[in-house]
Amino acid sequence: MTDASTNVVPIRWDDEKDEIVWLDNSQIPWKEVYVSSKDIPRLVSAIRTLQIRGAPILGEAGAYGVALAANNSPDHRDDILKNVKVQGEIIASTRPTAVNLSWGVRQIVLAVQGAYDKGARPSEMKDIAIKEAKRLQSENIAATLRIGENGKRLIHDGDVLMTVCNAGTLACDGIGTATAPMRAAWADGIRFSVLVTYTAPLYQGARLTAWELHKDSIPLKVITDNATGHLIREEKVTAAWAGADRILADGNVYNKIGTYNLGILMKYHAGKLYVAAPTSTIDISSKISDVKIEQRSQDEVRNIMGKVSIVPDGVETLNPAFDRTPPELISAIVTESGIASAPYTSSISKLLKSGLNTEGKEKG
Amino acid sequence: MTDASTNVVPIRWDDEKDEIVWLDNSQIPWKEVYVSSKDIPRLVSAIRTLQIRGAPILGEAGAYGVALAANNSPDHRDDILKNVKVQGEIIASTRPTAVNLSWGVRQIVLAVQGAYDKGARPSEMKDIAIKEAKRLQSENIAATLRIGENGKRLIHDGDVLMTVCNAGTLACDGIGTATAPMRAAWADGIRFSVLVTYTAPLYQGARLTAWELHKDSIPLKVITDNATGHLIREEKVTAAWAGADRILADGNVYNKIGTYNLGILMKYHAGKLYVAAPTSTIDISSKISDVKIEQRSQDEVRNIMGKVSIVPDGVETLNPAFDRTPPELISAIVTESGIASAPYTSSISKLLKSGLNTEGKEKG
Repeated sequence: MTDASTNVVPIRWDDEKDEIVWLDNSQIPWKEVYVSSKDIPRLVSAIRTLQIRGAPILGEAGAYGVALAANNSPDHRDDILKNVKVQGEIIASTRPTAVNLSWGVRQIVLAVQGAYDKGARPSEMKDIAIKEAKRLQSENIAATLRIGENGKRLIHDGDVLMTVCNAGTLACDGIGTATAPMRAAWADGIRFSVLVTYTAPLYQGARLTAWELHKDSIPLKVITDNATGHLIREEKVTAAWAGADRILADGNVYNKIGTYNLGILMKYHAGKLYVAAPTSTIDISSKISDVKIEQRSQDEVRNIMGKVSIVPDGVETLNPAFDRTPPELISAIVTESGIASAPYTSSISKLLKSGLNTEGKEKG
Repeated sequence: MTDASTNVVPIRWDDEKDEIVWLDNSQIPWKEVYVSSKDIPRLVSAIRTLQIRGAPILGEAGAYGVALAANNSPDHRDDILKNVKVQGEIIASTRPTAVNLSWGVRQIVLAVQGAYDKGARPSEMKDIAIKEAKRLQSENIAATLRIGENGKRLIHDGDVLMTVCNAGTLACDGIGTATAPMRAAWADGIRFSVLVTYTAPLYQGARLTAWELHKDSIPLKVITDNATGHLIREEKVTAAWAGADRILADGNVYNKIGTYNLGILMKYHAGKLYVAAPTSTIDISSKISDVKIEQRSQDEVRNIMGKVSIVPDGVETLNPAFDRTPPELISAIVTESGIASAPYTSSISKLLKSGLNTEGKEKG
């Protein structure tokens, strides 16, 4: 069985103070700072500045944000309903590419709407918002454990793996998503090592994934984003593991910029690109043309971590935060409900159906 | 005709003080600092710390370094000869991958040896060392102009180009190598734009190439190394241009880490990777197994520009400075003697022969 390997709690609801507490990702690995707030603009700002980041955690943040909106409301049914809808809209629009943020928001808005429709009292509506947000978090955590169990058989003794960005506990809660099969395999005694890519311009690989795996004593080395091809060849990398911010029904995967590079580079070297994500990341209704790639501030590229300006004055930069990896570059998509592989349209559809069945059973 | 587009002089011999003057690349784009010295350990340190860098400039630095060794010697024939050999060896071994450094050293050592063999007086031996180093620099500069003329027809109106590292004036003197066709095409009225890649861990793309092209008013944007695939697809990049630190007889190209990635990514998108370099970069005697890839300090990866530590304490890094791009990923190699293309073994051999003829004619 898998031992969850970190006691980091990236986000939680504080029952005594009725507020959200989160670990400020922007200060890792230098400081472990927990921020608590019941202020929604403060939460929105934390999401925008990547204090809170990573698709599944954004789902939890969205859910807790709506719980906050409910809890901050006057004790009137209509006020609560209006507040969760208006504030939910604001929170959901903070980052456009990850589907989980708006998904998390929607789950709690729907729960509050459901309670309202059944004539619940104001205090009941607030309780339901908090309870449902906590349930969503528990399910997220359980999903990472199942992703680990499902994905661990893809990792073998002696493998050299590569990762992009951070799809670990900090981004996904539990044992992470891309890191879940690694942690599950490691707990089973499988021994491998990981090359962790920088992931410029915010270096979530170097800062966050390296921090997590090093805590787990999984052997790793940090490499620059431009050393990937050379090291895939020279270090005989067998597979790259990535998370996902959004997965379309046909298997197109939106994830942190650099994932597409790894897909192409692994394919060229006859290796694998595995994507690990909860099924909440799957967006069955959107097409490629519907998905907006977030363009972040030019200054993130110009001025590294706000500290070293490396681009001459007056020179423009481009800063797409995500890229799209087409299904032909993806060897498998590992979810809590099972593993999808090509052809994705049918395998993803099958996964979602089995997921519904499983969920139905668990609830029954 | 090509107008050389910059008045930057990256390295020169100061006749009044008999010393070398170089532009400290490590301080660009923040400051334009010229360093002058007649001290060989200081020169070696400048090469090691990348104050002086780029394959063709390393050839010039090696040549001027030997001139310095001759000039610093006591006025005895044997001392001069011994000094240029011993110091030449030290200079040549400072960086192992670029062939130009040892090539530049060897040219001047041979010239001094030749003078010695003909019974030249000490002052004549010193003069010959300086004169030959200057001639090598003039030929380097002339070669960049010819690379521009030869390569400019590969650039077309509306192209979006990509570059890695800096193979411009700062690295190659004259109008650079990878930048030479761009500057020559631009001077002819061809209009295009350039996506300049970061090139971690020392950011020579962002710092140096962006600085040079911006001075030339060529439109450019700086991008991270992991955004390359996405932007090749989305911005419809037609070709990537790279320099070379060493080219084998069969067309394998050693260049700054990240060049191999661009080769694979351009091929996947049915685009081109062009390599531009003087024929002095061609190493006809080595095989792949003979070439050592320089592994630079882990700290360069850990601590960005010595200012932002982004890797958690205790975590290792890998820092290969170069990679090898195989000939099947290279659309053409543009030299001062002409353009080589697949099959490279014959086209490179032909180029070298024609280069010898041209050189013979010019000297005649």
